[in-house]
Amino acid sequence: MFITLEGIEGSGKSTQITAIARWLKEAGYDCLTTREPGGTSIGGQIRSVLLHPANDDMAPGTELLLYVADRVQHLETVVRPALAAGKVVVCDRYFDATMVYQGYARGLDKKTILRLHDLSCGGQTPDLTLLLDLAPEEGLARAWRRIASDDAHAAESRFEKEKLAFHERVREGYLDLARNQPQRFCVIDADADTQTVQTRIETVLAHHFEIFS
Amino acid sequence: MFITLEGIEGSGKSTQITAIARWLKEAGYDCLTTREPGGTSIGGQIRSVLLHPANDDMAPGTELLLYVADRVQHLETVVRPALAAGKVVVCDRYFDATMVYQGYARGLDKKTILRLHDLSCGGQTPDLTLLLDLAPEEGLARAWRRIASDDAHAAESRFEKEKLAFHERVREGYLDLARNQPQRFCVIDADADTQTVQTRIETVLAHHFEIFS
Repeated sequence: MFITLEGIEGSGKSTQITAIARWLKEAGYDCLTTREPGGTSIGGQIRSVLLHPANDDMAPGTELLLYVADRVQHLETVVRPALAAGKVVVCDRYFDATMVYQGYARGLDKKTILRLHDLSCGGQTPDLTLLLDLAPEEGLARAWRRIASDDAHAAESRFEKEKLAFHERVREGYLDLARNQPQRFCVIDADADTQTVQTRIETVLAHHFEIFS
Repeated sequence: MFITLEGIEGSGKSTQITAIARWLKEAGYDCLTTREPGGTSIGGQIRSVLLHPANDDMAPGTELLLYVADRVQHLETVVRPALAAGKVVVCDRYFDATMVYQGYARGLDKKTILRLHDLSCGGQTPDLTLLLDLAPEEGLARAWRRIASDDAHAAESRFEKEKLAFHERVREGYLDLARNQPQRFCVIDADADTQTVQTRIETVLAHHFEIFS
């Protein structure tokens, strides 16, 4: 069972993944939590190339291929061995993030992204994708409060219009993917306190594991 | 005009590319010589990830994607701008090297490599590919003499059988590509002294530029 967690910045993925792991263990499942990008040593090195400030002349195609290279390394050395060993793998972001950030938000050709994924990852599709849905205003405000909790006002003032429009496209992209693949996606309303969101997720998990295991 | 130079280790590519650039300049062409992998700053960083000794758990698919990422960066920021400016671009190794080393020699699926190239590089194909053909025994001996000219015997003793078989597959792969695309490939017998090989290449170039320019 391969579960992925998706959502904009500040949607609470890292908090909820810990709760999901605890729920799965209590339900008797052997579980591995992991994340993209950078879930492997080689992935970390690729991430350094992706994030290095001097690399501002990186071609969009180069960026896309580096994300996919990281994913293949993570799939081959972490995800697939764990799945083969019968574990439930819960991954913070996966292919949908590439489709949404590079495709919907940055405007790269979505068909090319999909074909590249099929070619490179052998079409490894999650069994269940939990989309933590939240308005970007709220997500970014949460993210900023976390980063600059002692100076929230100054931090929030840095919300640029452009940034907000970008995250709006990300959110809409995720919702579009969810609409088109309702059998895989489960949209969770993340505009609530941590415990409420956690309860919503656990209800979905209980339902899903009852049906599929 | 996009010209690539291919061949096994020790086939004399770097020596000949200098002579080709000189010939083109004397013939009145504005020329750029470049190389793969690592022809850009980002490419150099990708190359470091590819060659780092600690990365011996790199998945074959990851390796392939990193080579292609380097190529896309090189194409977008070096090759295509130079071609657009009307220059003759001469590149030491290109896509054929990936097909031969990863496909023919290491056994990755050749159709996948080709589809990945079409998808990532928009099928940017050289106008002319000069294949410097040489028996691996001779190529590797040359390469070793260059590395350890003061202790050639010790160096040559390190010729492992496996290594030779690998380079044999590389040579055969190159010759197979040349057989299948005779309109693009020109096979140069590189089993001769530098000046003789240079004259052979210049004859081809003179013929080619007479026809196509």
